[in-house]
Amino acid sequence: MALSIKPLADRVVVKAAAAEATTKSGIIIPDTAKEKPQRGEVVAVGEGRTADSGTLIQPQVKAGDQVLYGKWSGTEITIDGDDYLIMQEKDILAVL
Amino acid sequence: MALSIKPLADRVVVKAAAAEATTKSGIIIPDTAKEKPQRGEVVAVGEGRTADSGTLIQPQVKAGDQVLYGKWSGTEITIDGDDYLIMQEKDILAVL
Amino acid sequence: MALSIKPLADRVVVKAAAAEATTKSGIIIPDTAKEKPQRGEVVAVGEGRTADSGTLIQPQVKAGDQVLYGKWSGTEITIDGDDYLIMQEKDILAVL
Amino acid sequence: MALSIKPLADRVVVKAAAAEATTKSGIIIPDTAKEKPQRGEVVAVGEGRTADSGTLIQPQVKAGDQVLYGKWSGTEITIDGDDYLIMQEKDILAVL
Amino acid sequence: MALSIKPLADRVVVKAAAAEATTKSGIIIPDTAKEKPQRGEVVAVGEGRTADSGTLIQPQVKAGDQVLYGKWSGTEITIDGDDYLIMQEKDILAVL
Amino acid sequence: MALSIKPLADRVVVKAAAAEATTKSGIIIPDTAKEKPQRGEVVAVGEGRTADSGTLIQPQVKAGDQVLYGKWSGTEITIDGDDYLIMQEKDILAVL
Amino acid sequence: MALSIKPLADRVVVKAAAAEATTKSGIIIPDTAKEKPQRGEVVAVGEGRTADSGTLIQPQVKAGDQVLYGKWSGTEITIDGDDYLIMQEKDILAVL
Repeated sequence: MALSIKPLADRVVVKAAAAEATTKSGIIIPDTAKEKPQRGEVVAVGEGRTADSGTLIQPQVKAGDQVLYGKWSGTEITIDGDDYLIMQEKDILAVL
Repeated sequence: MALSIKPLADRVVVKAAAAEATTKSGIIIPDTAKEKPQRGEVVAVGEGRTADSGTLIQPQVKAGDQVLYGKWSGTEITIDGDDYLIMQEKDILAVL
Repeated sequence: MALSIKPLADRVVVKAAAAEATTKSGIIIPDTAKEKPQRGEVVAVGEGRTADSGTLIQPQVKAGDQVLYGKWSGTEITIDGDDYLIMQEKDILAVL
Repeated sequence: MALSIKPLADRVVVKAAAAEATTKSGIIIPDTAKEKPQRGEVVAVGEGRTADSGTLIQPQVKAGDQVLYGKWSGTEITIDGDDYLIMQEKDILAVL
Repeated sequence: MALSIKPLADRVVVKAAAAEATTKSGIIIPDTAKEKPQRGEVVAVGEGRTADSGTLIQPQVKAGDQVLYGKWSGTEITIDGDDYLIMQEKDILAVL
Repeated sequence: MALSIKPLADRVVVKAAAAEATTKSGIIIPDTAKEKPQRGEVVAVGEGRTADSGTLIQPQVKAGDQVLYGKWSGTEITIDGDDYLIMQEKDILAVL
Repeated sequence: MALSIKPLADRVVVKAAAAEATTKSGIIIPDTAKEKPQRGEVVAVGEGRTADSGTLIQPQVKAGDQVLYGKWSGTEITIDGDDYLIMQEKDILAVL
């Protein structure tokens, strides 16, 4: 999944996992009630944040990582018709 | 309890202790009145926070520690059907 | 596109891409409903931000870059009758 | 008073002094009107706070110190049926 | 335009350009509707800001520069009957 | 005036000067209208504040100094039946 | 004008210039409508602010300087029956 986008500084582009359309017991969830997904795959990573001391702090995630992120993190962007989220690395909670 | 999750930076994954379902005098507490638990066990720890000076500040807690944390700390996450809390190390008050 | 403006510090001048006047299915969007564009081309870049340590932190974008920026970023300015946005480099999300 | 709790970072566990139940002139104060105590004894101290420079800043109080603290400082915790306060060292105003 | 004022630290004194009294199409704008000018000329510059590290960060603008600044920047001052704006250098967006 | 209290960090214990009970023209001020005093005498001083760099920044005031402080500074404390104020050194405006 | 007051840190004592009691055209301004003066003379200066790095940042103004300061800067104090303002050096905009 080569994406022609280079996030700046400590930003990360994430492709959100599709929200499940049925509950565990099989009930179909109408579109408005689907819980916003919190899982996704990192597709592009910036070069890192330059601290006040001048040090470049490199990101800990890399493209391909499956990550968990806060429900309201990031900004939605559309590239070639697909929706992505662009967020700061600190909005990513964990790598799965 | 091997958990396939790697928290980022100074984050910690905690399994909350079950809230007690009866009071000391034996009265059963209905579900909505149970006090949210403040104890838990650390199950995964991040590599630490990178300070502005570029120094990596390592976490003081480790997996297996019984910890006390603020009532409203962290974000609830679900892994393999189990509920966990993911919080920053600074939200942990003490190790028991 | 030589522009006689020199942004200060970590500021960047961006020429917003024209908002599309029709939807994908060909419906004409009235002027008030056009989504504010989030793409643009960098036309001028400052020398960088001086950190508290005295270090000059140089910008990562350069004139000519196609960039993505937050919907409400920057201040609108008019130079020689054309509208531009002047924003801080941190308001730029990614280079395309 | 050995307490099996290890506060993290710059946190301190304090046992509040009992509020006086009578005024100076001997009037009994009903429970709801008792002024929340501001004195207490330190029972456990963390290892200190790690500054951004990586330096460990050690606490100035130690277990056994009689301290004065702000009226609304800290979080109430219960250990073995006893109530304690866990607060940051900066919430302690003075050692008596 | 020698002005007997020495701004402190990273402050800059700016003489705002006169707001245009007619629109492009020649309509006279009543005084209350004139857009507050955003262009001006720097007439005095401070010695710079002393960072926490003790470093003096020198200003990037100099007297005589034509500058662009945010609409609500600075404080209005009157010197010898003339109105000026005194603002911090960071309120200046660009040099023209 | 030996006071058995040791303020922590950059805190200072001040004994407020008595508010004047009459105006200049000799009118007696009822208790509720007395202006809260802003003068006082320093009776105890902490060891100083530890900066993020690990440096101990020593206090500039010492016990016995007559000081001026902001009207609403500090916390009132009672030691051996006397009222004092405990405040941070930065709340002290000047030494008289 | 020897004043027995030593401001702490980066504080400065200023004697405000008397507000003009007539407008340019000679109309007497009633007391309540007088614009609060923004000019004054520095009468005492502190030793400077200690930065987090431990560096003492010395003041740029000295006693006797005529200064311009923001309308609502500082705290009013009374010394020997005279009113002064005590403010931080950063509240002073410029030296005249």
